[in-house]
Amino acid sequence: MGNTDGFQPVSGFDLPRFAGVPTFMRLPLMGLSDPRLAQVDVGFLGLPWDAGTTNRPGPRHGPRQVRDLSTMIRAQHGVSGVRPFDLVNCADLGDVPPNPADLQDSMSRITAAVSQVRQARVLPVAVGGDHLCSLPVLRAVATDGPVGLVHFDSHTDLFHSYFGGSLYTHGTPFRRAIEEGLLDPARMVQIGIRGTAYDSEDREFAADQGVRIITIEEFFDRGVADVMAEARRIVGQGPTYVTYDIDFVDPAFAPGTGTPEVGGPTSFQALQVVRELRGVNIVGADLVEVSPPFDNAGGTAFLAASILFEMLCVIAPRLAAAKAD
Amino acid sequence: MGNTDGFQPVSGFDLPRFAGVPTFMRLPLMGLSDPRLAQVDVGFLGLPWDAGTTNRPGPRHGPRQVRDLSTMIRAQHGVSGVRPFDLVNCADLGDVPPNPADLQDSMSRITAAVSQVRQARVLPVAVGGDHLCSLPVLRAVATDGPVGLVHFDSHTDLFHSYFGGSLYTHGTPFRRAIEEGLLDPARMVQIGIRGTAYDSEDREFAADQGVRIITIEEFFDRGVADVMAEARRIVGQGPTYVTYDIDFVDPAFAPGTGTPEVGGPTSFQALQVVRELRGVNIVGADLVEVSPPFDNAGGTAFLAASILFEMLCVIAPRLAAAKAD
Amino acid sequence: MGNTDGFQPVSGFDLPRFAGVPTFMRLPLMGLSDPRLAQVDVGFLGLPWDAGTTNRPGPRHGPRQVRDLSTMIRAQHGVSGVRPFDLVNCADLGDVPPNPADLQDSMSRITAAVSQVRQARVLPVAVGGDHLCSLPVLRAVATDGPVGLVHFDSHTDLFHSYFGGSLYTHGTPFRRAIEEGLLDPARMVQIGIRGTAYDSEDREFAADQGVRIITIEEFFDRGVADVMAEARRIVGQGPTYVTYDIDFVDPAFAPGTGTPEVGGPTSFQALQVVRELRGVNIVGADLVEVSPPFDNAGGTAFLAASILFEMLCVIAPRLAAAKAD
Amino acid sequence: MGNTDGFQPVSGFDLPRFAGVPTFMRLPLMGLSDPRLAQVDVGFLGLPWDAGTTNRPGPRHGPRQVRDLSTMIRAQHGVSGVRPFDLVNCADLGDVPPNPADLQDSMSRITAAVSQVRQARVLPVAVGGDHLCSLPVLRAVATDGPVGLVHFDSHTDLFHSYFGGSLYTHGTPFRRAIEEGLLDPARMVQIGIRGTAYDSEDREFAADQGVRIITIEEFFDRGVADVMAEARRIVGQGPTYVTYDIDFVDPAFAPGTGTPEVGGPTSFQALQVVRELRGVNIVGADLVEVSPPFDNAGGTAFLAASILFEMLCVIAPRLAAAKAD
Amino acid sequence: MGNTDGFQPVSGFDLPRFAGVPTFMRLPLMGLSDPRLAQVDVGFLGLPWDAGTTNRPGPRHGPRQVRDLSTMIRAQHGVSGVRPFDLVNCADLGDVPPNPADLQDSMSRITAAVSQVRQARVLPVAVGGDHLCSLPVLRAVATDGPVGLVHFDSHTDLFHSYFGGSLYTHGTPFRRAIEEGLLDPARMVQIGIRGTAYDSEDREFAADQGVRIITIEEFFDRGVADVMAEARRIVGQGPTYVTYDIDFVDPAFAPGTGTPEVGGPTSFQALQVVRELRGVNIVGADLVEVSPPFDNAGGTAFLAASILFEMLCVIAPRLAAAKAD
Amino acid sequence: MGNTDGFQPVSGFDLPRFAGVPTFMRLPLMGLSDPRLAQVDVGFLGLPWDAGTTNRPGPRHGPRQVRDLSTMIRAQHGVSGVRPFDLVNCADLGDVPPNPADLQDSMSRITAAVSQVRQARVLPVAVGGDHLCSLPVLRAVATDGPVGLVHFDSHTDLFHSYFGGSLYTHGTPFRRAIEEGLLDPARMVQIGIRGTAYDSEDREFAADQGVRIITIEEFFDRGVADVMAEARRIVGQGPTYVTYDIDFVDPAFAPGTGTPEVGGPTSFQALQVVRELRGVNIVGADLVEVSPPFDNAGGTAFLAASILFEMLCVIAPRLAAAKAD
Repeated sequence: MGNTDGFQPVSGFDLPRFAGVPTFMRLPLMGLSDPRLAQVDVGFLGLPWDAGTTNRPGPRHGPRQVRDLSTMIRAQHGVSGVRPFDLVNCADLGDVPPNPADLQDSMSRITAAVSQVRQARVLPVAVGGDHLCSLPVLRAVATDGPVGLVHFDSHTDLFHSYFGGSLYTHGTPFRRAIEEGLLDPARMVQIGIRGTAYDSEDREFAADQGVRIITIEEFFDRGVADVMAEARRIVGQGPTYVTYDIDFVDPAFAPGTGTPEVGGPTSFQALQVVRELRGVNIVGADLVEVSPPFDNAGGTAFLAASILFEMLCVIAPRLAAAKAD
Repeated sequence: MGNTDGFQPVSGFDLPRFAGVPTFMRLPLMGLSDPRLAQVDVGFLGLPWDAGTTNRPGPRHGPRQVRDLSTMIRAQHGVSGVRPFDLVNCADLGDVPPNPADLQDSMSRITAAVSQVRQARVLPVAVGGDHLCSLPVLRAVATDGPVGLVHFDSHTDLFHSYFGGSLYTHGTPFRRAIEEGLLDPARMVQIGIRGTAYDSEDREFAADQGVRIITIEEFFDRGVADVMAEARRIVGQGPTYVTYDIDFVDPAFAPGTGTPEVGGPTSFQALQVVRELRGVNIVGADLVEVSPPFDNAGGTAFLAASILFEMLCVIAPRLAAAKAD
Repeated sequence: MGNTDGFQPVSGFDLPRFAGVPTFMRLPLMGLSDPRLAQVDVGFLGLPWDAGTTNRPGPRHGPRQVRDLSTMIRAQHGVSGVRPFDLVNCADLGDVPPNPADLQDSMSRITAAVSQVRQARVLPVAVGGDHLCSLPVLRAVATDGPVGLVHFDSHTDLFHSYFGGSLYTHGTPFRRAIEEGLLDPARMVQIGIRGTAYDSEDREFAADQGVRIITIEEFFDRGVADVMAEARRIVGQGPTYVTYDIDFVDPAFAPGTGTPEVGGPTSFQALQVVRELRGVNIVGADLVEVSPPFDNAGGTAFLAASILFEMLCVIAPRLAAAKAD
Repeated sequence: MGNTDGFQPVSGFDLPRFAGVPTFMRLPLMGLSDPRLAQVDVGFLGLPWDAGTTNRPGPRHGPRQVRDLSTMIRAQHGVSGVRPFDLVNCADLGDVPPNPADLQDSMSRITAAVSQVRQARVLPVAVGGDHLCSLPVLRAVATDGPVGLVHFDSHTDLFHSYFGGSLYTHGTPFRRAIEEGLLDPARMVQIGIRGTAYDSEDREFAADQGVRIITIEEFFDRGVADVMAEARRIVGQGPTYVTYDIDFVDPAFAPGTGTPEVGGPTSFQALQVVRELRGVNIVGADLVEVSPPFDNAGGTAFLAASILFEMLCVIAPRLAAAKAD
Repeated sequence: MGNTDGFQPVSGFDLPRFAGVPTFMRLPLMGLSDPRLAQVDVGFLGLPWDAGTTNRPGPRHGPRQVRDLSTMIRAQHGVSGVRPFDLVNCADLGDVPPNPADLQDSMSRITAAVSQVRQARVLPVAVGGDHLCSLPVLRAVATDGPVGLVHFDSHTDLFHSYFGGSLYTHGTPFRRAIEEGLLDPARMVQIGIRGTAYDSEDREFAADQGVRIITIEEFFDRGVADVMAEARRIVGQGPTYVTYDIDFVDPAFAPGTGTPEVGGPTSFQALQVVRELRGVNIVGADLVEVSPPFDNAGGTAFLAASILFEMLCVIAPRLAAAKAD
Repeated sequence: MGNTDGFQPVSGFDLPRFAGVPTFMRLPLMGLSDPRLAQVDVGFLGLPWDAGTTNRPGPRHGPRQVRDLSTMIRAQHGVSGVRPFDLVNCADLGDVPPNPADLQDSMSRITAAVSQVRQARVLPVAVGGDHLCSLPVLRAVATDGPVGLVHFDSHTDLFHSYFGGSLYTHGTPFRRAIEEGLLDPARMVQIGIRGTAYDSEDREFAADQGVRIITIEEFFDRGVADVMAEARRIVGQGPTYVTYDIDFVDPAFAPGTGTPEVGGPTSFQALQVVRELRGVNIVGADLVEVSPPFDNAGGTAFLAASILFEMLCVIAPRLAAAKAD
């Protein structure tokens, strides 16, 4: 597999970063019916939808702002020297249109779009949107049986229901995903959990199911390398999904989110944890809960774009190697 | 009817305006089961709910910010000298708790709360929330047959449906209200309509039904006094509901809203139109679409509070006179 | 001439307004080498460049933010009912890449791009960028002799030079354009001029050349209709360029600009003046000086988008009629 | 009297407006003991003090921000062509240092500083600070008997006391000034009064004293020219002080203030009313209540600077003529 | 002692967090004359007052914003599992009304209110307001002799006077408290001190008195656990007051304050230090200097609410145990 | 050498920090032709110029905002107790006026101004402006041969050219400086380098030249003390220039900059690295890339001022000692 010139991001030397219609990392934009889709290896897909949000809305505006700030991403990783766009063909696959008035319909649309992406043998990287978006993505990803999960977040999102029985909110997606057989609890790890709690219902469920929770206290005590080594052991070599809630990061570094929890990691650690996913068999990923109305000057969206590039630099070499075989 | 000392707003001379837990106009806060409710004449009710919003969310945060800025309202009208709190007993009746995950349930809760308010013979003034909130309020208000409507807005909100059939959004409430027999189209007037349009479906529906639309061009040509005289003629002396979308006002004066339209009235005219409702038989009112995430320094919420006070100064004298009979 | 389905903007009923990669008015995006260019009648072209700015920079970010807010524009004019996208084929032609390090090269690139647009028989509507951008556009537009100019602005931009001899800044473009024979001074009108002045050099030059200046005092005294009737008489039926500096509008309505002048028109008047250009033989237009760093919540960019739509509703019927002949 | 080169503001052609330490209108900065003071005709004096503020603080930061934005003022009036810096010598006299912990001491300091300014035969133009600042200025100005007052504001500031007897707040200065014999009530006019009221105490006091109040309703009904003609008649040719509370202007145009009242004049009218003071025997002036924490992007401070320049263009010609005699 | 249902915070499952009039942690609001006060164990009291501020004002708005953001606090501690509202009865006791025009009167009012709280055997937790507020609180708390002090701050607040002799500013409260015999210097520890200094006067006073100062350099060198173990030794088991100036935390995590000092702890450490107060005999506490005008999107207020909850989780178990005896 | 009273900063006890025209650290302001210049030891010089910026402009406004926030700096270092203003005479030397329309002329002006400063035997500390400003400063500093460089930054700024051959942008200054013989590559160290890269061209150039690059990963691994010991070894005792790009610091601590890179040091480390420069033979320094349009509430400018004070506390003792010899 080689790369196609058409899949290189526009360079800031050719078109200044403030110019041009912004796509994810300045990649070519193509719809799901575009014939070039067949050549794509990794596709970024926007999920501008936040109907699962129970407090402060805004993530529906996330994909647009992440695209805007992602124009500041360049082509080469600063530490590893990886040049992902030379290794695999990447594209911006646009946004899945939600139905603001119908939650179930919106979820169906996401599942359908991601299914189409995967049928084209494109690895999906979704950009939310709130965390409920992960559920319909997983429905399209876990088609051959439950997958493993590396989950960065300050919340477990494992609650049963909200507001007198509502099963689908941004606090419940992974409970649903386990119940639906999309996730293998024994191959799940949640990292960064903190903040005040309603009660222990979510943690008891996790304990019952065998989901491993690494609180922020444990995270800081052990350090990134040790924690992530355990995470890699937990998911092993089976197919694994990575979900990254931007509220994993401390709100000083990522203020633009609806349900912040103080006392979190720095932006350096925010990147490190992703870098430590090297070797994991990632079959899909998402980054969610960027909320532009709370994101002064776009810093949270830029951090999100930096995390997405870090993800890509973990995914691309493995994908390129696999295809080379 | 006299007034009860307990219903006077806290004065800024006693408690500085920045101090204290903010209620609407610093009135006493009471739940719907509070025994004092029987003494209340006009009740402000928060509707923190925006599930009907089709673009930029935020009005769910409206009631809280309007309460905050309403602490700057004093006890006497600057022009007429009306002192509404001396004429009628007013109170903050708190917020109706929406169900963020269930639109129909949320509407039912609003209807139930307003019904309870009206059963206590309290005139409801609702503070949204998005414009879909007006529909469940009207269901509780129009219990004795269709009512008239004075509607300040830049949009007609008379569309049939959105997004492939969704009947309940903030672009459809008055279409539904007409269909449900809550409004008498012949006694409806919409003032300030402007902005780009999807098509003419809403205006054709209005024309068919006999709803009078006064565009912003006509409004500026004729002036406030002439337009409002016509509005009073249209609604006559029958029971009338007043609904005020803050996007009626030009976004320079009211930036904090989700669907602004440029080219609107000033804040002076925003108050004038309400003042010209004197003599109208108002049975309920609302002010909607204040969206704090877009409201730098609270100016829109302060304008909203000023409009609400203007409404009160129209409602209170008539109510006091009626009770005196 | 009919319209092609492919040139319709995406409707907010199909794709919510917060979703999708934003193009001008949600029109199809195409490069200048796209074969579809031959079908286009009106092309929006971004000029993200502000090297001519002498005080507060920022307009380089203008096209991106105008695109974002223009997603709130719908397909039909609210007053006239004109549906421009049914009359002519419109497209977003992307941005001209400036050279941030070379002013003359940047101007050459703009002239080249607009020339290419015009050779494809597409009417260019440019979105700046600062006001110096108008000069290279005019070089591409006035290829058959000097054109007339309707110029909305708070400044004349007729100065000779800045900073000890600099000929090319955003305060000099129309002086240069007259000198270069691109504009016919006798067919030029500048509307809205106000604010403190360095001296009278610009006004004396205007008087010498026969350029008509209508100050804001005269504008308010006479009213929009009378002023614009004179403007139409001045430019007559010859080819005319329209240039709109957003600082024409009062900074309460358009804070997002680098050189505001208080005491300007409202947003309603901002649209009216464009509407009154009906019948003018417009061969090109621009809207400049939107500066996102000063534009809280995007209100200025939304006003800019509304003005651009108003321009389009003046241009499209005449163009459609001309082609129908 | 001629002007001294040393008193010209720095031109934006020599030093870009964003460069340099900002002084009022880029004038020379000099302390009150500077020997050049003897040459000064009009002196701008900062009063960074807001201990009289009863609600939202911030005007203490006003002088600094007004200086910053006043760098955008140029040397010539756009309408009249007056070049004030060619007519009289102007200077920035720095700030009077308040004592944040002692209100009476702060007032004494202001009176002392303004007295020193006047002894040097410099006409003082003060920049607040909150409106209580006007009182100590008046104590230094009205040394030869009560003066007349033209007062632009949305509030009368004529209350007796606040908070159980506090005599010195920003709601009481002109009551105190009348009591102290600094103002002649028969030569006082208050323009723009509006907003909700505590009660009628202030208006009754005004009526008793013969102070003329022109409400905003009367202002809009009669128009600027008619109202200001009356204002000129009221103050006549006796010595007159001009006080301008920025909350006179509608908060859409001047959001940066602590006690806004909606429904006010535009920025165009904000300048017009000052322009109509031509011929008035102004012996001192102030502009107060600019509050930077509420002034997004500095628009209010720029309006304030524009008003100050307008004041200067009224003061300078008369002063130059008087001196020429 | 059991808990009373009436003292449970409103759950986000019942009333969404954006709804309802915000009280501290959604607890019941009651005035000091409310008969329920007798049942309260811990009372949150707002002190909206900043007359002691020597630079940038704003903390007067602090209690209101902390209440707003505290609606995001849930019922259970994430690490320890402590559920404070199940252990003790908590309430929001409203705000003490300051007299903006009289500093000494304001201090008297605070002392009186806290005395009343303590007479009802309620442990007071005050929310400022600026740091001078701690002095009148201490006057009500140290009624049985001097108490110990754990003081988190970037400044010592031990200066003698400001501005030529002013004894009461936010830089002097603990000097006064020692002089008045309210604090036992030998049982005082100040943690986090940093930033530029006027001189060494405060530190020399501390050294003379035996007050222990732990600079931020020592804090980072030794780590939280070691430093806090020393703090616990210093205050021992005697009655101890805890005062927390939000500017203890680095301004990246807590920008909303008037006198920030860079180079401070993270938000994680901000919580840790409180958690390490377990076992201390806390008789009162405060959190001060949250300044909403500088707090974009409320992050500082949310951190403050998180710290208050952390305090409560230290106070409640000890109080419950003591009462159980 | 003693200090002159006239060179002491104005104390916040005499003039509150919010009052007065702000100069760097409230030092006396003097032009380069001021006779007092001969007495100055260290001069702060503003370089309000950003024509080298390739993406988001704004640093032209940097010097003004740094001056404003530097009013919060006091006279004594909190850790070392150094009182720099007692050791050396410091002054604010104003701004070098750039020519916004001519990059080469602007660079010449900076070089000329710094040369004049150095001829007066004043050590220059420049405040940008963008990073290209360092080049003309170095041209004035390295007059006796190449100097060493301690360079704090997230970018190497060692690129050859941008945009098809532009040699002078904020990404190229140190490449030019090496080529021009202004810097000794063997005595250069760059600290904090991180972020995505265009390619490896800059790093290869560094390697070829012998420039030492310490990435952020190495920085965090080794710690400040170890890294800075190496830095001191690299530059040795030869004349050394210190350049500090504020984007060295993590954007959570320094959001106000145009090209942020996440994953950087804290504000504590930002000061530490400077403190570790003790003993270095500093002959000039700068701090660049503070961009006010992105600096909410001035936090970045305050950090910049704190870093400048830290620099001064390293420079002053050495300078005083040298002069004492």
